[in-house]
Amino acid sequence: MKIAIDAMGGDHAPEAAVKGAKMAVDHYEDLEITLYGNEELIQPYLEKHPRIKVYHTTEKVENTDEPARVVRKKKNASMVLMAESVKNGESDACISAGNTGALMSTGLFKVGRIKGIDRPALSPTLPTVDGTGFLLLDVGANVETKAHHLMQYGIMGSIYVENVRGIKNPRVGLLNVGTEEQKGSELVKEAFQLLQQAPVNFIGNVEARDLLEGAADVVVTDGFSGNIALKSIEGTALTMFSMIKDTFMKNMKTKVAAAMVKSDLKGIKDQLDYSEYGGAGLFGLSAPVIKAHGSSNDRAIFNAIKQTYHLVEADVVTLIEKEVKAMNEREA
Amino acid sequence: MKIAIDAMGGDHAPEAAVKGAKMAVDHYEDLEITLYGNEELIQPYLEKHPRIKVYHTTEKVENTDEPARVVRKKKNASMVLMAESVKNGESDACISAGNTGALMSTGLFKVGRIKGIDRPALSPTLPTVDGTGFLLLDVGANVETKAHHLMQYGIMGSIYVENVRGIKNPRVGLLNVGTEEQKGSELVKEAFQLLQQAPVNFIGNVEARDLLEGAADVVVTDGFSGNIALKSIEGTALTMFSMIKDTFMKNMKTKVAAAMVKSDLKGIKDQLDYSEYGGAGLFGLSAPVIKAHGSSNDRAIFNAIKQTYHLVEADVVTLIEKEVKAMNEREA
Repeated sequence: MKIAIDAMGGDHAPEAAVKGAKMAVDHYEDLEITLYGNEELIQPYLEKHPRIKVYHTTEKVENTDEPARVVRKKKNASMVLMAESVKNGESDACISAGNTGALMSTGLFKVGRIKGIDRPALSPTLPTVDGTGFLLLDVGANVETKAHHLMQYGIMGSIYVENVRGIKNPRVGLLNVGTEEQKGSELVKEAFQLLQQAPVNFIGNVEARDLLEGAADVVVTDGFSGNIALKSIEGTALTMFSMIKDTFMKNMKTKVAAAMVKSDLKGIKDQLDYSEYGGAGLFGLSAPVIKAHGSSNDRAIFNAIKQTYHLVEADVVTLIEKEVKAMNEREA
Repeated sequence: MKIAIDAMGGDHAPEAAVKGAKMAVDHYEDLEITLYGNEELIQPYLEKHPRIKVYHTTEKVENTDEPARVVRKKKNASMVLMAESVKNGESDACISAGNTGALMSTGLFKVGRIKGIDRPALSPTLPTVDGTGFLLLDVGANVETKAHHLMQYGIMGSIYVENVRGIKNPRVGLLNVGTEEQKGSELVKEAFQLLQQAPVNFIGNVEARDLLEGAADVVVTDGFSGNIALKSIEGTALTMFSMIKDTFMKNMKTKVAAAMVKSDLKGIKDQLDYSEYGGAGLFGLSAPVIKAHGSSNDRAIFNAIKQTYHLVEADVVTLIEKEVKAMNEREA
């Protein structure tokens, strides 16, 4: 299996990508990785390995680059060349921790959509208290969405969670302002009807309040609301951790208490650390394209590679393609 | 000043309403309160007071009642009679901790809208780390929104925050998936333009991740996204508190540590307890209608009464009416 990685994306580039790649080739004997990026910057972190190659390029995508222009304006950027290797069949999948919008745009133009899928969805797995996690899609690939897209998100998410995360008959929920069927906007009401007829285990509406408690295994929503949910959860968790930290630093007594529960509280942080579940998949593209979190360290990149490995292994793209084709034939 | 309270709404009815009312009349010498509800159930909690009256009715709105039907089907419900007293001029404002949808519908039909305001907005104040708090509107009064409504939310929110919460020249932000002007759906792009021309201190887009850090004093969004943001924040905070609690109960050592920081951690909980800021205003109605949190205790009801008192005192309704009128005249 061949995976292409944009070594220049993310806050800890290229160190995180290079070290994560090494962890991955040690873990999977049949895995070959090509790192795209500036060889001079990559070299210091690279341990020579027969299954790690470097594709040298000095151009890279910045966070300030306008996503839609990257493919045309930065033809030799590490991210663009990485996606091109997937297009050319040189790689089976690709991963970047760089500019999210640019990756979505590059993925769409270079890798392309699965036939029958109208819109790809950016799909991270978020933590739940029981450690299972849930897939949230879409978190911002498309801010304007039709009910039909939401149904397709449900199908793609369900296939991914069942085949890669090993959750049998995953529960698909529709994010809404209440659990009753008649709740919400026209969009979600229509999506509710479509999801009821889709080949998924649709459990109805779920509320944002219950997400971390594991209300569903797959949570479907439009890219605007999904982005709001994701960032509200992230922001609240970060703010609370920082408040707890401040509290523990207050005086001698609290510092002693902090020392006593440090490892236990670290456990909570780990439990809520969603890089453990890998990156966000751009589901609906004709090969796996994975967005690792911008703050990814080597371990987070390794997790993203593991996830990508399983995506390729389970051939999720073909499974999605077949399911969508069968559905379109039934509808016709 | 006369405030009407639905004594039968909320998880701790009627005790919380009755005791909260007593705290309020002790606090404000010119305040008269009428409690609407079942006198038999109210009596055990009621200390005789010359400025607290009870309006007896046995009918009440249940959480399972369909909001739109309440006004017609439950004419003698405590919530409906309370709103009617505002309509008749017997009360200056009203408060309920009951069924949110029913209160919005009852408020709309009984109290009515301010002339020139198209849609009322349900507007709670949420906590920020610095203790200032921010007003979020709308969190669900209208799940389908036009850009024009979002602009009016900005105006109403700004007037409330300045005149009741005492924040001079409050910063009004538009909830979006990124901070750049070109981000988001057509709705928010159009609202961005309108807010730039509105008589408010518009600071542009804000992201959900930065809300608790105090990114803006007034955050404007459609009712669907606002509901998702509110419940994501609530849910994450509740889940984290329960994880922390479990962690501290793990063994002897953690229990000892817990005892040492108990009061400090309680401080975090208090800081995030948004009932301290009062209830959620239904801004845009022609008199203050306040939704107290369903789980309100007597102190939360007292805070909602204080908020309502200041709303009436500052005559926020008239200020909104004037501002909207002036704007419509400029536009014409």
